[in-house]
Amino acid sequence: MRHAEIIAVGSEMLTPFRLDTNSLFLTEELNRLGIALIRKSVIGDDRALLRDAILEALERADLVIATGGLGPTEDDLTREAASDALGRRLVPNDQVLDHIRGRFARMGRVMAPNNERQALVPEGGQVLPNALGTAPGVWIEAGGRALVLLPGPPGELRHIFTEHVLPLLELRAGARRMIHRLLRVAGMPESDLDHRIAVIYKTYADVETTILATPEGIEIHLTLWSEDLAAAARRVDELAGRIAEALGEAVFSINGETLDEVVARELTLAGATIAVAESCTGGLVSERLTNVPGSSIFFRGGVVSYSNEMKTAWAGVPAALIERHGAVSAEVAIAMAEGVRRSTGASVGLSITGIAGPGGGSPEKPVGTVHIALAAGQGTRERLFRFGGERDRVRRLASQSALEMLRRHLVRARQGGS
Amino acid sequence: MRHAEIIAVGSEMLTPFRLDTNSLFLTEELNRLGIALIRKSVIGDDRALLRDAILEALERADLVIATGGLGPTEDDLTREAASDALGRRLVPNDQVLDHIRGRFARMGRVMAPNNERQALVPEGGQVLPNALGTAPGVWIEAGGRALVLLPGPPGELRHIFTEHVLPLLELRAGARRMIHRLLRVAGMPESDLDHRIAVIYKTYADVETTILATPEGIEIHLTLWSEDLAAAARRVDELAGRIAEALGEAVFSINGETLDEVVARELTLAGATIAVAESCTGGLVSERLTNVPGSSIFFRGGVVSYSNEMKTAWAGVPAALIERHGAVSAEVAIAMAEGVRRSTGASVGLSITGIAGPGGGSPEKPVGTVHIALAAGQGTRERLFRFGGERDRVRRLASQSALEMLRRHLVRARQGGS
Repeated sequence: MRHAEIIAVGSEMLTPFRLDTNSLFLTEELNRLGIALIRKSVIGDDRALLRDAILEALERADLVIATGGLGPTEDDLTREAASDALGRRLVPNDQVLDHIRGRFARMGRVMAPNNERQALVPEGGQVLPNALGTAPGVWIEAGGRALVLLPGPPGELRHIFTEHVLPLLELRAGARRMIHRLLRVAGMPESDLDHRIAVIYKTYADVETTILATPEGIEIHLTLWSEDLAAAARRVDELAGRIAEALGEAVFSINGETLDEVVARELTLAGATIAVAESCTGGLVSERLTNVPGSSIFFRGGVVSYSNEMKTAWAGVPAALIERHGAVSAEVAIAMAEGVRRSTGASVGLSITGIAGPGGGSPEKPVGTVHIALAAGQGTRERLFRFGGERDRVRRLASQSALEMLRRHLVRARQGGS
Repeated sequence: MRHAEIIAVGSEMLTPFRLDTNSLFLTEELNRLGIALIRKSVIGDDRALLRDAILEALERADLVIATGGLGPTEDDLTREAASDALGRRLVPNDQVLDHIRGRFARMGRVMAPNNERQALVPEGGQVLPNALGTAPGVWIEAGGRALVLLPGPPGELRHIFTEHVLPLLELRAGARRMIHRLLRVAGMPESDLDHRIAVIYKTYADVETTILATPEGIEIHLTLWSEDLAAAARRVDELAGRIAEALGEAVFSINGETLDEVVARELTLAGATIAVAESCTGGLVSERLTNVPGSSIFFRGGVVSYSNEMKTAWAGVPAALIERHGAVSAEVAIAMAEGVRRSTGASVGLSITGIAGPGGGSPEKPVGTVHIALAAGQGTRERLFRFGGERDRVRRLASQSALEMLRRHLVRARQGGS
């Protein structure tokens, strides 16, 4: 098997309110087995449209996975559509029926008649048991191709896929596998980055190089499909190494780690502790520092000192300093970082003060003006940023830049610099 | 026009790393014009597959919108695939060429030869100018149906759609329009909610009722397609009103507002001010209170008192109290809320202390144990929650519950209760 399609079933995914995300998990798992996704579709709860979509997909791909539409209600039509597409009768399966009855009994309830529909299986289909819910998955082979039906709830889908579909796919997958590396880069415009590395990755024509801009920096995806895993891994790692060398310390991750994870690891490795005083980011930097498990080892505390009074009370910023330079100033940023470091006893103090907008800007200090300071034993650094865009973007970029300043500080300290 | 399909073009959206989100914006705009989406697909950068997808979609739908694949590189094949599908030659368009050359000139650069491809338009196609980039959109009619090509970058796509596609669609859309209302509900399991309102919405068979569980509570979507907008709005609002009445104060929004927005509005209306002391949520509550523009009016400040020392220093929690009851306790939650209220002078103090996991749990206080307290002039309330799931989920549910406690306090105070 080399080519797959995924069909997500459900009218709610054709509204502006919900996306299919199961396909991301499935794609990752399929890629790992050397199976490439050639198309994905979302189809509403319409039996004829769904039948046609299944038939078309089976003409193009070895493997078709339909997710959702296996519930007990009349809107759930994936079983019927699969039966129509393959010309196989739906047959009640006693084991599935017992399983569903058992689940209801354990909850002290009687199975609703509707749920009997969930025990219908297209003739010749293999039942894939669902330990977490009522709807089983189904594996059906036809004309050398496979159609897999999986329930929509992500937990149930992942469980059935991992327990029952993976082993069946492993038997059928070719020797080809995918090697993937993800590098993350901070603080560099996409065009500059491409200019610096295009000359390198173009000499690795066998490796797919994809550059994606995200709010958390630029991602460089390197992908190689090969039957010789070890050689492919060497080849991709060689390219990753050359790219990392060309971009220098702007590369913060060569193994897919997020900036939050990298910073948490560097803090832990260094035995450092951190405290944060932030205004315009409103708690976002503290939130990101603590969203990694184990953060209580290095996170001493944070203050969201929105008002001038709280900058003075919590971060020890002299009121006169704020009066003289304004709350959004290098001087106040420095005083906040040093103050919160002092009051918490942390080894590093990090501060942000700025104007996220939409209000509060002036000609000298327009919306997007942000001062970030880092205080440590070696002294205090401060940087001025001017971010474009709306409130949410300014807040996200400011938090990203603060964590990136912290990362560079920790890396340099580890390497014996200042 | 009544039925549309969207085709998102780009191999990167067939990886585990990126989703098509342009379709959410387009769906909302189309729905507003009474045009329903019947399918969406993602296709890689493959000319033949893309041609087939366009042809199939044009057989099913009046309107097909293809997004992406209009860039200057050899991977960008949407123009070619559209030309193949419709049997129309690609013709260079001088105006587009001038526009692209002008953009480069203004940046002080010479247009790369590659960019000439972006000036190719299928014969008979109407150019939709792109003021924000080089690739124009294209509108092509064939056999009474319309194929629209739009560039993938969201800003450019939205701009061209709003400026040029909407007017063309308005001329062709029928009189049918969509009325949509979104109610949001907090603090109620989905099955209980359905049980309480099914008897109501089932008597409104003409209105589509969709219930979706999200991390920010349950969403109830009410949708009605009609040619008589005023009557449809009355009908949907009547149903919304009956549902809101049946669910009582658990309904926090009847117009799609988020909890963050509702809380910000209630605080502003009441002239109240708020301060937060949080531990396990690590700044998330402060972040949510400040992500709404204008929050400096009501947000006094927040502390992320991860360590016991900072609970004492910043929120005035007596060290002996922590010693006696543990940092995760009703007593400490109450002291944190009262302390941060006192130290900031805010009218309301809100606190959270709990165990987000994965470590730190015990038999008496398992992971997911969270105390939330609210201190106000009328006194202090405290509640114990036990959330299931992983660290991220516990943090999100805890922040949601804290904001919901705050909302109910403000609503009751407004209504003259306590």
